[in-house]
Amino acid sequence: MGSSSLNDHTYIMEEGQQLDHVIGDRNVAERSRMLLNSPDPPGLCTELFGSIKEIVNLPNGNKSYGAGSKKEPELKQHVGSLLRGLFPILSWGRIYTLSKFKCDLMSGLTLASLSIPQSIGYANLAKLDPQYGLYTNVVPPLVYALMGSSREIAVGPVAVVSLLISSMVQKIVDPVADPTGYKKFVFTVTLFAGAFQAAFGLLRLGFLIDFLSHSAIVGFMGGAAIVIGLQQLKGLLGFTHFTNNTDVISVVRAVWRSFHDPWSPLNFILGCSFLIFILFARFLGRRNKKLFWLPAIAPLLSVILATLIVYLSRADKHGVRIVKHINKGLNPSSAKQLQFSGPHVGEAAKTGLICAIIALTEAIAVGRSFASIKGYHIDGNKEMVAIGFTNILGSLTSCYVATGSFSRTAVNFSAGCETAISNVVMALTVILALEFLTRLLYYTPTAILASIILSALPGLINIDGARHIYKVDKYDFLACIGTFVGVLFASVEIGLLIAVTISFSRIILNSIRPGIKNLGQLPGTNNFCSTDQFPMAVKLPGVLILRIESSYLGFANANYIRERILRWVTEEVENEESKENARTLRVLVLDMSNVLNIDTSGLHALEELQKELVSLDLQLAIASPTWKVMHKMKLSKFVDIVGSGWIFLTVSEAVDSCIGSKMVISLPC
Amino acid sequence: MGSSSLNDHTYIMEEGQQLDHVIGDRNVAERSRMLLNSPDPPGLCTELFGSIKEIVNLPNGNKSYGAGSKKEPELKQHVGSLLRGLFPILSWGRIYTLSKFKCDLMSGLTLASLSIPQSIGYANLAKLDPQYGLYTNVVPPLVYALMGSSREIAVGPVAVVSLLISSMVQKIVDPVADPTGYKKFVFTVTLFAGAFQAAFGLLRLGFLIDFLSHSAIVGFMGGAAIVIGLQQLKGLLGFTHFTNNTDVISVVRAVWRSFHDPWSPLNFILGCSFLIFILFARFLGRRNKKLFWLPAIAPLLSVILATLIVYLSRADKHGVRIVKHINKGLNPSSAKQLQFSGPHVGEAAKTGLICAIIALTEAIAVGRSFASIKGYHIDGNKEMVAIGFTNILGSLTSCYVATGSFSRTAVNFSAGCETAISNVVMALTVILALEFLTRLLYYTPTAILASIILSALPGLINIDGARHIYKVDKYDFLACIGTFVGVLFASVEIGLLIAVTISFSRIILNSIRPGIKNLGQLPGTNNFCSTDQFPMAVKLPGVLILRIESSYLGFANANYIRERILRWVTEEVENEESKENARTLRVLVLDMSNVLNIDTSGLHALEELQKELVSLDLQLAIASPTWKVMHKMKLSKFVDIVGSGWIFLTVSEAVDSCIGSKMVISLPC
Repeated sequence: MGSSSLNDHTYIMEEGQQLDHVIGDRNVAERSRMLLNSPDPPGLCTELFGSIKEIVNLPNGNKSYGAGSKKEPELKQHVGSLLRGLFPILSWGRIYTLSKFKCDLMSGLTLASLSIPQSIGYANLAKLDPQYGLYTNVVPPLVYALMGSSREIAVGPVAVVSLLISSMVQKIVDPVADPTGYKKFVFTVTLFAGAFQAAFGLLRLGFLIDFLSHSAIVGFMGGAAIVIGLQQLKGLLGFTHFTNNTDVISVVRAVWRSFHDPWSPLNFILGCSFLIFILFARFLGRRNKKLFWLPAIAPLLSVILATLIVYLSRADKHGVRIVKHINKGLNPSSAKQLQFSGPHVGEAAKTGLICAIIALTEAIAVGRSFASIKGYHIDGNKEMVAIGFTNILGSLTSCYVATGSFSRTAVNFSAGCETAISNVVMALTVILALEFLTRLLYYTPTAILASIILSALPGLINIDGARHIYKVDKYDFLACIGTFVGVLFASVEIGLLIAVTISFSRIILNSIRPGIKNLGQLPGTNNFCSTDQFPMAVKLPGVLILRIESSYLGFANANYIRERILRWVTEEVENEESKENARTLRVLVLDMSNVLNIDTSGLHALEELQKELVSLDLQLAIASPTWKVMHKMKLSKFVDIVGSGWIFLTVSEAVDSCIGSKMVISLPC
Repeated sequence: MGSSSLNDHTYIMEEGQQLDHVIGDRNVAERSRMLLNSPDPPGLCTELFGSIKEIVNLPNGNKSYGAGSKKEPELKQHVGSLLRGLFPILSWGRIYTLSKFKCDLMSGLTLASLSIPQSIGYANLAKLDPQYGLYTNVVPPLVYALMGSSREIAVGPVAVVSLLISSMVQKIVDPVADPTGYKKFVFTVTLFAGAFQAAFGLLRLGFLIDFLSHSAIVGFMGGAAIVIGLQQLKGLLGFTHFTNNTDVISVVRAVWRSFHDPWSPLNFILGCSFLIFILFARFLGRRNKKLFWLPAIAPLLSVILATLIVYLSRADKHGVRIVKHINKGLNPSSAKQLQFSGPHVGEAAKTGLICAIIALTEAIAVGRSFASIKGYHIDGNKEMVAIGFTNILGSLTSCYVATGSFSRTAVNFSAGCETAISNVVMALTVILALEFLTRLLYYTPTAILASIILSALPGLINIDGARHIYKVDKYDFLACIGTFVGVLFASVEIGLLIAVTISFSRIILNSIRPGIKNLGQLPGTNNFCSTDQFPMAVKLPGVLILRIESSYLGFANANYIRERILRWVTEEVENEESKENARTLRVLVLDMSNVLNIDTSGLHALEELQKELVSLDLQLAIASPTWKVMHKMKLSKFVDIVGSGWIFLTVSEAVDSCIGSKMVISLPC
């Protein structure tokens, strides 16, 4: 038990103390030996190898639950499980029923009615012709239905990625001056994005998307939503000239300038009235769950109504801007438009990488949150492979970067989808639209598209989330608001850079400025706790117990930790000397339980500390060193310097031993 | 005491168990309350403010020991202590004695005899005229004697900084085509370096130099020594054409090419014979401590002898390259040569920053190691201010970046210096040399200068240090060898970049791939330890105890930790189900003692984990959460989700409680 008897009066239990003590002393030495003779921890190579093995194996959740794990011939079983792994449709397709299809049909049609107007708007945001938005709603959902493991996700163009593409690509190729070059570049970016996504998934690098912390994403989405909203002012107000920059200041200045040009308020009136209509439909849908189809169908309804109004009133002659020509027919091949030579390939790869990460972040966040509602789990790496192949095939068929959409997935879910077949239904509907409806969309006013996008934005701004982050973690909130401000006032990339920098600097800062805590004994126990956290913890006379609150004692903090400990010790000694005549402090117990690793700089700092303590006539005791630290202290002979008798399994054993060796006089308080 | 009674047979002590149990249960609940009601940790603002305050106050070691801390009038006392702080000579100058001066005179003269030839060689390495090396041996030592706090350090030009300057500056200004512009740039760099150094010291940013870890410095110095040695081949072999690059491959290629040009072997014979003489003198000095002056004086002796030989034999007519003209007279002012406009100011500042850090690293390492031999402590921040002002004043008087030299400080120490007055003696001797000896140095062969530099290099290569690093810490060795290879095969800056990258990536890697350890009860105690470190630790039936080995549970590792824990749990459940009929696993105890901080992503991961455990019919118990983690778990209502009864002060209390609540059946093994 090794119970400490320093402050006898604080103990509740008193019997057995004597016996306990004798046994305790014998045991303490025995356990110190156990600590000193523990096996060697794995070396750097073993660890690296293990880490790689783990990356390859770990997230494959299906491995342990995999179907057909018994008795089948091995090769067939392997090929079968590989195919089922790549194409989950082979698993769930077998048990697909008519009743499920009815649900999927309904939700697919609902989805299509929202997708068609939204995707035209997003193509506009990406500075592409409207048909490219529709194309992106055909091939990607079909590919995803074969390969994806989420049942609810609605795949297609999304607002944030569209913004990202236009804001990054137009710096390299001007979409107005060279529309063909712009298109080619966008397809190349799409291919790169897909290749990166598939590579991340195949190499099990799913953790890469974790580098954008939740709080950074909240800030990023909020900032992007406002930027997208501001971009819609062009369509909503019917301006002809507008800025290419995405930051708030440029946009506000452009709006101000545009007001001085002639513009028709008809655009604004039309856009606003339908925006109000869509928002009202959503409000009704929320109030009455049975009317879930109303907000989903409202955008299409608006498009039809507005197009009719414009067509009948010939409002396009009075300044109302319309979509005009949309190419008819299915996705043409774009394989020959991909560019792998020329000066901008590096830029295309960079843009592709950023789009890949943002798209994956959105898809996996959406997929996971709806999967957890239905109680199943999504494997991030598999999802990455699916989205990756979706975009690779998309780039060959005139699509730009597609991913899982927040707003449409929610519609799909509430429309009662059962499997990815709803995506197939949606894609088929879009094909029909491409074949037969493009001419009807000629008179659709652009203000309506703007208001459809605007109506989807509030879902991206998560004020409650930001408030929660502020309440729980101020530093996280800093990352959130930094990203938000970066996206809003600089650019999308700067915002992302700020997010990653703030997030990682927290890890670094925690490491270079660790805390040192004074420990005291918790009355009635042999636990030693921080006196800050537990004000009732009692400091013991004669022993100073300090805990290093860092997982790493090394080059970046070793000097700082040594200086802080030394200052604490000297202050304690001076305090004692100024108060009493006799100095009681004899031992410094260093609780190293939090220090998981140490390097040569850290070991050197400990040696220095030991020397300085000797010159102050103090003994150093090491309590609860962790595995690697213990190993390295042995290798560097630090154990011999301190004396193996001064290394203990726990703080309380160290304290007991001080009393046992009479170094510390136990004073009744 | 809260002792666990799971495996009764493992206990040595048996009396009092019953009583212990009853009391234990009451106490466990009480202590859980203590944990839940601990005061709030300081917020982000308080912490930031405290950290700044600490940076400003902490390293001022003199504060607590400061002289004159009583009764003097306050203002006078403040000014006095400030002056004494800035100019330590005011403190030790009062007690300076004649006997100390005798020691300083001897060591100063010894130092000068080494400094004069070395500094001419270093100026050559820095691609400056020889007199600039001598100038740098006049003003900096004088300034340092007034402001520095080390007693042994010898200030002046050093090999590594000379190499750094020539390799970085010649990329911007060609020293052959535009020698005046090159000089101006070097002085500007020196001013920037001094300003950065002084600023680091005044702002108490001493910790910045810790970012170059000890192992990185070992690798850097080794690589730099070899590069410097290769640069000396030009002088030693008497080549006229040579490469400006510093990497090994370029130099070897240049040597190969130069052999095809006509060259005189006389240079090589002269240089090698004197190199052997200097090394032999050093060997004798090491064997016999009384001959310490022999290695110190050998370089000057070589210069005198070689110059005489060349002068008498007129060997310069036969291809032996000589120093030729050296400007006579004291340091001219260079204030007007500093450039603060023009295109290269940014480059000058960058070069200055790198030189500042390397120079400080060397000076502080030298100062500290000799101070610790003599048993006093050097304040890094004050030292930075002193070296900074040394360089600022140096840049105004035609000096380039000076710092404490490894080799000359060792000579100064072994010559028995007592105070910085030895630097003053050295500087005065160099002034005499500048006034009267420059003409005599006309015939000095450059091969001798090369051999003097070569003889100083072995001291920079620390093979024992590298071997020790390899033995103790393989990852540290990676940083060491990476820096070494980077300096050798790429460039000095690339080497430094590799050093910083490898060192910091360790901190990041530790954070994103933390360990999860399974804990077992150490027989005879209520300690729970890792079963890897202590193979004798006993796993308890019905409870799985996992420890998160990371100081930070956040965005970068939260998903990984959640997945690893979940995998561990499911494997455990499957194992049990395959073996027996009845599943005993009921509780997962999560030991969070190492987790010092958590963010919203980490909290979210815990919530997800809790949900997943519920679906597996398992209870989650949190053991020993730290201060901030506890606080944030309360704020985010995670405590309510788990249930405040499932949060415990220690693992053993959590285990006790599981037995108490009959969730876990205690089975005799």
